[in-house]
Amino acid sequence: MLLTLDLVGIFVFAVAGGLVAVRNHLDIIGVLVLAIATGVGGGVIRDVLIGDVPPPALVDWRYLAVPTAAGLVTFWFHPAVGRVERVVNVFDALGLGMFCVAGAFKAHEYGLGPAPAAALGMLTAVGGGVIRDVLAGRVPVILRHGEMYAIPALAGAAIAATGVEWGLRPVAVLAPAILVASGWRLLALRRGWSAPVPRPGPAA
Amino acid sequence: MLLTLDLVGIFVFAVAGGLVAVRNHLDIIGVLVLAIATGVGGGVIRDVLIGDVPPPALVDWRYLAVPTAAGLVTFWFHPAVGRVERVVNVFDALGLGMFCVAGAFKAHEYGLGPAPAAALGMLTAVGGGVIRDVLAGRVPVILRHGEMYAIPALAGAAIAATGVEWGLRPVAVLAPAILVASGWRLLALRRGWSAPVPRPGPAA
Amino acid sequence: MLLTLDLVGIFVFAVAGGLVAVRNHLDIIGVLVLAIATGVGGGVIRDVLIGDVPPPALVDWRYLAVPTAAGLVTFWFHPAVGRVERVVNVFDALGLGMFCVAGAFKAHEYGLGPAPAAALGMLTAVGGGVIRDVLAGRVPVILRHGEMYAIPALAGAAIAATGVEWGLRPVAVLAPAILVASGWRLLALRRGWSAPVPRPGPAA
Repeated sequence: MLLTLDLVGIFVFAVAGGLVAVRNHLDIIGVLVLAIATGVGGGVIRDVLIGDVPPPALVDWRYLAVPTAAGLVTFWFHPAVGRVERVVNVFDALGLGMFCVAGAFKAHEYGLGPAPAAALGMLTAVGGGVIRDVLAGRVPVILRHGEMYAIPALAGAAIAATGVEWGLRPVAVLAPAILVASGWRLLALRRGWSAPVPRPGPAA
Repeated sequence: MLLTLDLVGIFVFAVAGGLVAVRNHLDIIGVLVLAIATGVGGGVIRDVLIGDVPPPALVDWRYLAVPTAAGLVTFWFHPAVGRVERVVNVFDALGLGMFCVAGAFKAHEYGLGPAPAAALGMLTAVGGGVIRDVLAGRVPVILRHGEMYAIPALAGAAIAATGVEWGLRPVAVLAPAILVASGWRLLALRRGWSAPVPRPGPAA
Repeated sequence: MLLTLDLVGIFVFAVAGGLVAVRNHLDIIGVLVLAIATGVGGGVIRDVLIGDVPPPALVDWRYLAVPTAAGLVTFWFHPAVGRVERVVNVFDALGLGMFCVAGAFKAHEYGLGPAPAAALGMLTAVGGGVIRDVLAGRVPVILRHGEMYAIPALAGAAIAATGVEWGLRPVAVLAPAILVASGWRLLALRRGWSAPVPRPGPAA
């Protein structure tokens, strides 16, 4: 069940990564690499940082097969995929919530305190997109334009990390944490909320 | 013998990295960093992912000395090096074959299945070039233009990973795997073969 | 005492990272991510490479709190921070000296020889800035323009690595190594010294 949810999240992230590759005129390797990097990159960074190597995403073939399939689908059917991008964005917001919570839980299991666990949960959710953007030659979207993406992920991860630190059962923390992260992201998408930017100033 | 081959491959990769740095008007640190990153970067990523840390490339001084020497040669004699770039490309294709096979073998030794071992073998061969290009501020060449580079590496790594998975002795798998990867790369260079790109479409 | 020095160095590096983010028109997440990446990124790369995971910078909350605070200060007061950038540069040079020496010592503790320890010491000092620049979408400043930054760091790290290899007590090596790295950097800033660039040539 959890595995299925995880793979669905990876698939959706990978589709988003493949679309970026197609739009940047990359070739099939570019589409596949960006799909895989976006799908499993955040989790792999987290696993390397906490010392869970080789990362499960490399040991279990399904974690490579699913984003590869997503990349191939995007490569062949990108006009159709691009037309349903709003749907992709909704699933992407759900993936964001699942990944930030799963990342925070795993960091807690490996003995990290709540603040580092929250940071790693956010990194799990956004790290793949950062790698994707760096490889595509652009400044990561989560760092600019006030895109409201990392902040909901950090909020969800912080709830999850704090909850398990307080001794609550993960299953009781799961729903509210995902709800906050994914709900906030979806509302931000719909209402155009954005993150603060520095005020203009002469010395900067 | 194997070590010598490995160091020759690293030297050639490092020369290619140094040339990119010179052409992008980097300074001596840029030339050396890109030479070292291109030469040993793919292997270091592989080692970090499978948990072989500190990576042999950091423990054995020769793995740093060889790409450093390649970087210095490129820094001082880049006009001459640039004139023999076709020769560099031939050796680079041989390095590609050796690295993808060595990477797949090592991943297999560390318990990875054939699909992840093939993926890591490819990553060993192309990872250094990806780091080089990201540091030089350009989209990695293996992701665009249909450059036929990662696909031969994946093919060679897949043959190597499948062979050892079937219980064949590494030495029996080595030659055909390198032959496929390096031969395919050389033919692609000579005949102008390229990898598929997405068909144009409105939504992408 | 050492921890305080370390945190001061991280704070200053993080301010420099935040300023790059503000100047590149990133949002608050961009400012915080670049501040944290610049402050602790070099140490985290070193720790991952030598196998000290999870890295202390993730386990001890102060290593995240300090660069986060530096990022927030830069976000809100960047015009004032920008006006004292010369002061920031002086502290940055001191941080460079401390980090390259601390990195070389730690690599030595983990069994690396003097050449790899010197390389990792330099990487500790400059790695955060490289991540910062890649995320900000620019070629790392230490690789171009002949910026005299990595060479002093390598010199300081080499002195530190050689000294402990010879059996000298770290405390006896600390001062001269920092003096060389930070002093060289400060003199280079003041006198406009720069690193060599490749001579122009037709084939490059």
